[in-house]
Parts: sequence; structure tokens; C-alpha cells
Amino acid sequence: MKRTKVKELLNSTSTLKEVLVNGWVRTFRNNQFIALNDGSTIHNIQCVVDFENTSDTILKRITTGAAISITGALVESQGAGQKYEIQVAQLSILGDSDPEKFPMQPKKHSLEFLRENAHLRVRTNVFGAIMRVRSVLSFAVHQYFQQKGFVYVTTPIITGSDAEGAGEMFRVSALPFDNTPRNEFGKVNYKEDFFGRETNLTVSGQLEGETYAMALGQIYTFGPTFRAENSNTSRHLAEFWMIEPEVAFNDLDDNMDLAEDFIKYVVNYALDHCLDDLKFLESRLMDEEKSKPQSERSDMNLIDKLHFVSNNQFKRVSYTEAIAILKNCKPNKNKKFHYIIDEWGADLQSEHERYLVEKHFKCPVILFDYPANIKAFYMRLNEDGKTVRAMDILFPGIGEIVGGSQREERFDVLVEKMKALGIDEEELWWYLDTRRFGTAVHSGFGLGFERLVLFVTGMTNIRDVIPFPRTPQNAEF
Amino acid sequence: MKRTKVKELLNSTSTLKEVLVNGWVRTFRNNQFIALNDGSTIHNIQCVVDFENTSDTILKRITTGAAISITGALVESQGAGQKYEIQVAQLSILGDSDPEKFPMQPKKHSLEFLRENAHLRVRTNVFGAIMRVRSVLSFAVHQYFQQKGFVYVTTPIITGSDAEGAGEMFRVSALPFDNTPRNEFGKVNYKEDFFGRETNLTVSGQLEGETYAMALGQIYTFGPTFRAENSNTSRHLAEFWMIEPEVAFNDLDDNMDLAEDFIKYVVNYALDHCLDDLKFLESRLMDEEKSKPQSERSDMNLIDKLHFVSNNQFKRVSYTEAIAILKNCKPNKNKKFHYIIDEWGADLQSEHERYLVEKHFKCPVILFDYPANIKAFYMRLNEDGKTVRAMDILFPGIGEIVGGSQREERFDVLVEKMKALGIDEEELWWYLDTRRFGTAVHSGFGLGFERLVLFVTGMTNIRDVIPFPRTPQNAEF
Repeated sequence: MKRTKVKELLNSTSTLKEVLVNGWVRTFRNNQFIALNDGSTIHNIQCVVDFENTSDTILKRITTGAAISITGALVESQGAGQKYEIQVAQLSILGDSDPEKFPMQPKKHSLEFLRENAHLRVRTNVFGAIMRVRSVLSFAVHQYFQQKGFVYVTTPIITGSDAEGAGEMFRVSALPFDNTPRNEFGKVNYKEDFFGRETNLTVSGQLEGETYAMALGQIYTFGPTFRAENSNTSRHLAEFWMIEPEVAFNDLDDNMDLAEDFIKYVVNYALDHCLDDLKFLESRLMDEEKSKPQSERSDMNLIDKLHFVSNNQFKRVSYTEAIAILKNCKPNKNKKFHYIIDEWGADLQSEHERYLVEKHFKCPVILFDYPANIKAFYMRLNEDGKTVRAMDILFPGIGEIVGGSQREERFDVLVEKMKALGIDEEELWWYLDTRRFGTAVHSGFGLGFERLVLFVTGMTNIRDVIPFPRTPQNAEF
Repeated sequence: MKRTKVKELLNSTSTLKEVLVNGWVRTFRNNQFIALNDGSTIHNIQCVVDFENTSDTILKRITTGAAISITGALVESQGAGQKYEIQVAQLSILGDSDPEKFPMQPKKHSLEFLRENAHLRVRTNVFGAIMRVRSVLSFAVHQYFQQKGFVYVTTPIITGSDAEGAGEMFRVSALPFDNTPRNEFGKVNYKEDFFGRETNLTVSGQLEGETYAMALGQIYTFGPTFRAENSNTSRHLAEFWMIEPEVAFNDLDDNMDLAEDFIKYVVNYALDHCLDDLKFLESRLMDEEKSKPQSERSDMNLIDKLHFVSNNQFKRVSYTEAIAILKNCKPNKNKKFHYIIDEWGADLQSEHERYLVEKHFKCPVILFDYPANIKAFYMRLNEDGKTVRAMDILFPGIGEIVGGSQREERFDVLVEKMKALGIDEEELWWYLDTRRFGTAVHSGFGLGFERLVLFVTGMTNIRDVIPFPRTPQNAEF
């Protein structure tokens, strides 16, 4: 007999004489009621064991975490809480789970403990839900762009280019590490390395993505990126997934429109496709916040917050306007900020971004036209000569979720900027070719996928929304 | 005015009074006919310039590769070859392209030359088509699995685990490379490295994927994987994208069914969604094969070949049967093979696989039940004690496109196998946990995405189906 998934059984429109279901025991009550889960849904199916006709040996092996196979009838449930349940006719143990040893017992485990067991935490309700939501969101990303005619581009992970200046990089090498070959100056001789040069893990696919946008018109990347920064925070990973669309002929306004429309689409897609998991995560968040002081609790429940984001326009504010707001706000005047804003040109810190989003505007905010000297070399200089066509999207509780810009399409202006910053033209010859041959206005942005998953799941530590997080001192599994 | 994409204009159901189109000049004939492309389709739109009323300065700047913006009327074309064309009312040059310098001139370039210009080759018809097909195939992969309820899992790229034995690995490090800290034995002290241990780039997400399948039931990965093998062939990349589904409760037969159904789905999806590009690639392949001797040409045109694969059952043959066929075949008896097959247990080489697929069966072949000692440690041992539940799918012209197996779910058997092969149990404690707690039959496979793209596009060098290939001595861009 073919096995049926728990999700299908729970969604059945009628009782069924005989079904086969495989899964893992979540709980076993009164020697009679098995809550069985197979990962297809947050919900368990209740399987009722005829304990009088089942051997004690078998009953003892129905423990949390055990894999079992059941055949029986799908019948209407007498109990509250479920429409259907299975009357077990046959039960076999596929794989035992010693209750003395299985770490995922049916009780509340700390998130820290679960992180140390990243290979097993997905067997809990919380992580099953998170990972299903993550999967649905990733599909929504692809679907959004594909429907609009964007071409998915996989930019290189190992890169010979280190001129982007987006952060510290990991070195990649196939040289014998204990005994590297040296050149005449006593330095490592990369000519003998696999690629015949120094190579690193990419920090962004943007520059390569631009070369593709200038041929295919609309492209997006969705792949892993890396930062060798020693930041042990709840918002940073050394390895994370980034989405980077790039569109020829789009200016900054088009870019903001695209980013806002995109985010709303994927949030709505999650609401439409995994509401059960989101409801569960909403209740988890409410539980968690009960232990916090009122002032630190969310204003809105998770699902209300998601609807709020998808139904309301993001507030678009220039950097200059934002500085004016911040200079005159209470926490700045009362010196409650760590970094006091006293003049135009200041780099905004997380505390300022949170004030704007959470206290002042109370909605997602798009800041644009930043000072040139606090932003990357490839952003388009405005006519004022001091700001660039950059934009950041700030989200409540998350901070920066998107960073983007209209790119500097003018060859001369770009080269001058690179010179001023000491970026090697030779190194980026191929990037400059996009401006040498058929250049045009174009724009793009980067969205850190895990920050999006954080927002949608209501989790607060980024290590909990990626299967096997990579952070300083942590590369287990 | 909002710009319209070339693809939409060509698919228009009526003439239009005024349209705006931006793109790059492919060719400019007779000072009058611009073939304009914006990457949305393989086809160009013809734009007819009123040269008598256009300044010579502008006409001279309409060169191959230049970015231009045109407004005008979409009218029925007088010429053959297109339904509509644009009568240019206004034309502006967005970005020049010096015909003396632009490398992508409208003539036949060698694939080698184009590889050296990987950032510009996508502006040619061939590479535009390949990259659109690649994108559509990647979406088909996600759509197939998501529709079936699989959860997309991103397994780690940087891994502390090096016990998989799937190939040589790249080292990842944030240590100062010229002057690495040493321990008391004079070896590199990885405790001071970013992750506090040796880390490498992943060769496969399978082991981590298994831990997720044993919780979520059905999962798939789709991400970059790496091999530091010095193979300069047309079928190997140091960095390539791999798809690895893993399903709890699936045995090897289910696994073969899944792989076959999956491949047919994505091939059909490409036929349904990028036929124009495939037709172009088919004609490219025919051109290329004209210069080859008859015996080396394909039996079928590209599109016929794709239909053939999607319409015919793959032939399933045990390793033992395959050896019998090979032992008695002409090239073996006449010693035409490099490696003569004379007994059961031989590892099959590419020449043998090609014989089976291209000469003997003339269709995709699934080989299964291989000798244990030529396959990986995690494959399930058969009752015969000498073969494992492995399967490889072999494709004409490509060779191995899928490798998979039913996994050894029995803790004791697995540990014994690991011991025999000297694989450290301590290192893989987390992998063994899947067998310690609630183990069950499960199976999965890996498909090298670029090999699939090779097959579907009819290209013959794997460096031509990934945007920026990584191979020995090559990490430019």
C-alpha cells in the first residue's frame, strides 16, 4: 500500500477504510494515543492504539522520536481538537528512540540548547515550522522574479575579485596549508594555488550581476554570501543567503518600487501558503513575550504585523529629512542615543534606524539619497555632488533588510571615484567594460534572506532561521 | 512613458501608436535598420530609422553594443521575417560602444574567446539563450519539488565535516595566510581561525540533508558544491550547482521513480517555456556538427532528443546485467575499450557507460545494485552482502547525470562500514544520530545541475552553461 502524508489525511474529505502512514512519534499518552508527525505539516495525526491487543514490548517502544509505520482506518475523532484520527490496525517500529538518550524530549528546550543540536532541532514544532516557512519564502522569491521575466543568475562563490569593499573575506585555497609554497619575497606563492591567484568567498554577486543585467535586462541572484567579520550578534551570520536583483534602465524610484512590491509579494505568499505554521509561530512569540516587560513586547501579533506590511505603503524619506527628524527628536536631545546626531553626514546607527521605524513613522521606511562618503563606490552621484542614489529599507525589529542603489553608469565619474578610493581599475576591468560598451542607467538591491525569514517567522535570533548557522567559533555539522 | 520589453512588442496583438523601447544594438544595416535586443527574448525587434531626418552624428553612434532608447510606432513590417517593427520617431544614445574596441562584434566568435569574456558573452544570441534556459530549468527544479510538498533546505557551504570522501576539498580560512599561527607541533593552529577548527567548502549537502529528511519527510537542496580536483575536462567544474533530494521512507525503487519523473518534468518544462531559445540552440548545434564527421554527429536534433527523453521510460539495468552485456560486447572482445571488462566488480568508465547508453540501449539508463567496494559508505548493503542499493542515471552524450542510493539506515551496519573505511565516528556523531533515534528507510540522489543544462541546451563544454566558470587556473571575474 502507498503511504499517505499526515497533511493529506488531516485534509481528507471523508473517512477511509485503510491507510498507511509513516512518521515519528511526538508523544504517546495513556498507552493509547500517539501524536504522529511526518514533517508534512505542523499538525500531528492522532493514532489510537488498541492497547489491550498490543504486546507490552511494542507499547514500550512507542517513545518520543521513534519512527513507526501504521496501517488502520481513518475515522472521525471522538476527541476534541481534531476531525479525524486513525484507528490503528497494525503498528510496526521502524526505528527506536531511547527516551533516556533522545535529546528532543516533549518539553520546552532553550533555543541555545537546540542550536547545539541543529541536526535534531528540526524535529521540534518550532523548527519544523520555521524551515517550512523558509522554504515557501524561497520559492516565492523565485516565483516573483520569474513571473516578471527576470533571469536567475548564479554568480560565482569563489571569486578572484576582492575590490568590492563590502566586508572582510574568507580565503579559499587548495595549497597544503601547513607548508605553503613561497615566492622570492617569502610570501605565499598563489601562482601554485588551484586557481593560480588569490581567491576568496564572495561577499556579493552584484558586480557580476550587473554585467548580466546589461545584457539580459532583468536578472536576480539568490545564493550564499560570506563575511569573515567577528560579530557575535543576533543579526549576523558568516554565511547567509542573499537575493540581488539588477535591472537595466531602472532608476532609483523604479528600484524602490520593485523592492517594495517584491517584499509585499513574498510576505503575502507566506500568508497564503503557510498560515498554519505562521499561526503556530505567532503563538510561540506571544508565549515568549509574556516574560518580557510590557514596553518590550510587540505592538502587533505576528500575522497582523505581516498584513500591516503588505497592506501599507512604505514611507519614503530622504537621508536629509531623516537627519532633521533625528536631530530634533527627544532621545537625541536628551542624549539617550549612544551616538548623538548633530550634523548632516553622520552614519546612521541601528538605534537611529529603529527610532525612525518603530517610534516616528511606525511602518517600514525607505531612506534614500545618502551622503556619498558613507556609501559604496558604485552608487550614482547626484547633481548636488555630495549625495548618492542609495536606498535602504528599514523594518521594525529587524533594521536594514534591503540595501540598494542606482548604479553610477558614467564611465568617467566611476573611474574617478575608484581612484579616489584606491580601488584598482585593472582588477575590475571587466566591471568597467559595462560602462565602456553600451552603458545605461541601471539599479538593483540586495536583500538578506535570513532577515526576511526572521521578520516573517517572528524569531529574534538569525541563527534560528537557517538550518546550520555559521558564526565565529561555530562550524559544527 | 513606460518602456515595453521587446518580447512583449513582438507578441503584441495589434499595432501601437507610440511605444518606448530601450535596448542594445545588435546590428545596424543600410543606415536604416536597427536590430535591437533587450535580453527579454532571443529575437530582436527591427527599428526603422528615418535616416534622411537623422543627423550623421547620431547615425554613426548606432553601433553594435550601443545602448539606445527609441520611441516610435509599432507597425506591421513590410519586410519578411517579422510581423511588427518600430518606425523610429525619436532615438537617443544612452551609451556608446566603440566598434574598434567592443569585443562582441556581429561575427562568429570561438567559444574559447567568449569564455575569456564571460562578462560580455551573455550579450550574444547563444549565451543569452543558454542563460535564459538555465534560469527556466532552475525554476522548474523548485516548482517540481515544491508542488510535491518537498521542503527546500540550504545546507552549509562552509563545513567542518570532511569525512564524506566525495572528493578533494578547498580549505576556507580567515587566518593571515602569509604568517599562520602554529601550535606546539609546528602545524597551523586552527583554534585561532574564525571557526576555531579546520573548515572546507562542501562537496555535498547530502549528510546534512538526511538529518532534515528524517524530520520533514521530503527535502531537497539546490546550491553550490565544490571539488578541488585538477581535472581540465569539458565535464568538470571546481564550483557547480547540485540538486539533492532526500526522502524518508523511500526505497531504491521509489528513488529511481522520483529521479526519472523529476528529469522528465524539468525537460518538459523547458520545452514548454523556452522553445524559442531551444530552437535557436538546436540550429547552433546543427551548424556546429556540420564540421564533424558523420559518425560523430547526433542521431537526433536537439528538440527531438528532449522529447525522446521525456516520452520514453529509462531502461533499468542491474550492475550485474550491465557487466554481462559489456563482457560480451564487440569493443570489449576486440579490445577497443581502454579498460577491458573481464570480471564482476570492475568500476565502469565513461567509455562503458557511453556504450551502454549510446550503442546498446539507445536511451537513458539507470544502473543499480553496484558492488559495495566501489561506492560510498552510506549506501545500503543488500542481502547478498556484496552489493549496495546504489543507482546512477546515464545520459547520452553526458554520461552520469544522477548518482543516488538508498541509505544504510541500520546503525550497526553503518558503524561497521565506517570503521572498515577508517571514517571517524566522532566526526560524524550528528549523522549517526539519525540512525540512533527513529531511523527509517530513506533514499536520495544528487543531480549536477550544469550537466542537466548541458543536455538541454546541446552545448558540449560545461564551461559554457554556467555564467562564470571556475576551473584550474581560472577564477577571473
